[in-house]
Amino acid sequence: MLPKSVRHIDGELWYSVYEGDNASLNYRVRKILHEEQTPYQHLMVLDTYDFGPVLVLDHILQTTTLDGFIYNEMITHMPLAIHPEPKDVLIIGGGDLGAANEAVKYDSVERVDMVEIDEAVVRLSRKFIPGVAGTGELDPRIHILYEDGVKYMAEADKQYDIIIIDSSDPVGPAVELFSQPFYEQVHKRLKPDGIMSCQSLSPVFNMFYLQHIRDVLGLFFNDVKTYSATIPTYNGGLYSFTLGLKKPPRDYKGLEPQGENRYVTPAILEKSFIQPLYVQEDLKMEEIHDV
Amino acid sequence: MLPKSVRHIDGELWYSVYEGDNASLNYRVRKILHEEQTPYQHLMVLDTYDFGPVLVLDHILQTTTLDGFIYNEMITHMPLAIHPEPKDVLIIGGGDLGAANEAVKYDSVERVDMVEIDEAVVRLSRKFIPGVAGTGELDPRIHILYEDGVKYMAEADKQYDIIIIDSSDPVGPAVELFSQPFYEQVHKRLKPDGIMSCQSLSPVFNMFYLQHIRDVLGLFFNDVKTYSATIPTYNGGLYSFTLGLKKPPRDYKGLEPQGENRYVTPAILEKSFIQPLYVQEDLKMEEIHDV
Repeated sequence: MLPKSVRHIDGELWYSVYEGDNASLNYRVRKILHEEQTPYQHLMVLDTYDFGPVLVLDHILQTTTLDGFIYNEMITHMPLAIHPEPKDVLIIGGGDLGAANEAVKYDSVERVDMVEIDEAVVRLSRKFIPGVAGTGELDPRIHILYEDGVKYMAEADKQYDIIIIDSSDPVGPAVELFSQPFYEQVHKRLKPDGIMSCQSLSPVFNMFYLQHIRDVLGLFFNDVKTYSATIPTYNGGLYSFTLGLKKPPRDYKGLEPQGENRYVTPAILEKSFIQPLYVQEDLKMEEIHDV
Repeated sequence: MLPKSVRHIDGELWYSVYEGDNASLNYRVRKILHEEQTPYQHLMVLDTYDFGPVLVLDHILQTTTLDGFIYNEMITHMPLAIHPEPKDVLIIGGGDLGAANEAVKYDSVERVDMVEIDEAVVRLSRKFIPGVAGTGELDPRIHILYEDGVKYMAEADKQYDIIIIDSSDPVGPAVELFSQPFYEQVHKRLKPDGIMSCQSLSPVFNMFYLQHIRDVLGLFFNDVKTYSATIPTYNGGLYSFTLGLKKPPRDYKGLEPQGENRYVTPAILEKSFIQPLYVQEDLKMEEIHDV
């Protein structure tokens, strides 16, 4: 039996990812490389014609071989390029290893703790999506803990320079990662000049969640900044990330991403804070209006 | 019988727009509002749940009620905001009237000639997509000629400040609008400080056409600049436009779009010249690398 998001159409396999009830992106699939129900979620790896092998959790597209670098570079380089000397990095989620691999491009980074609830995500990303997860030995600075990110945040006492919340969407195991108590813990676990970044969904289809994240971060952080990128395989194209910074607001200019990259440049990081007018108006973003 | 791009799935109508053979965007459809074979193309107006009434030509999505403003503002405001005093504007295509309605937001504009081959596009856009085409009387500065744009360019002797090539994709009636002889005519019909803009397709899926347009414009114009926007209803999200300028290159900064808008701001116009690194590399865009 086919997984519910994969169907035969005219003799071909197609995977559909829905945004609400009324729109979907569809990919022609060469083969279902892997399918399992883990203790936490339904997991598939599909070999698509246009985007190569892709990771799908609870039927939502997470990472593709072809454009996975966009999301991973954007969620990681922004906080690391803003921070003057990031040493200790924590990633909550991030099982495809993309964010961890970006973080270790920074010379100052000494240790990356990656707390992923589901070891199957790491195992299968390493096996099927090496373009994102990397090949060969992991960078020795990356330490993977297979644990519940919420539990880790509540119990750990380590302080971090950077915390990246690289979660799936707020369905399934990631729901609590969008809650106020969790962000309060994130704030506590950051050093005085610490910075967090998180994915904050599509401003086109999920403005509710983006606004919620901005409101909740505003309770704890001195500065909250939303930035965006265009990700072809996410519904709506436009995708948002949000920063929480412990220090007072400043101009985030002259940012220098480190390493060999494919999406980010100094200019791309800087311009990603500028949103189309309709997004600014929806978010009442006075602070970046007509920058 | 249903049009070939509309099908029943689980008792619902869905419209599919394909990008090549391997990816499609799908919209749940409330109703087919109109369908006809015009002398030039297959035309549909579909009432979609998420994007309202949408115009579809030869089964390719052209304009939606919800996000049509993004494309129309971007193709129009950029050349008009760069030009010091645009008076005479020519639009080739643009039958949804979106570009013409944007152009008359500029106080200096005295006349907009819109050359649309297919009167059905104008008629049905006015009837079904007033959010783009406008309601009530047209601005008296807008003059519609129902004529072949290629023929008009070859025969007219009028000179313009701005020429906007608001064509459909290079299939069907628009093929010649992507040819070298046509761009040469556009160059001839522009005044010495004239500027043209055109849609140059998706850098994600149609890099071939974008590169072709840049190469051909480079034969005639002193400066060629590609800029981009994120358009949710176009496959790949990222969409490109290209300018040809008769005058030598300069910094296109401090641009002030006129009128009440929903996408463009000064900062949005300026940042739209900055492309993600993978696009810059594909296009060998030395001139904007790491702006």
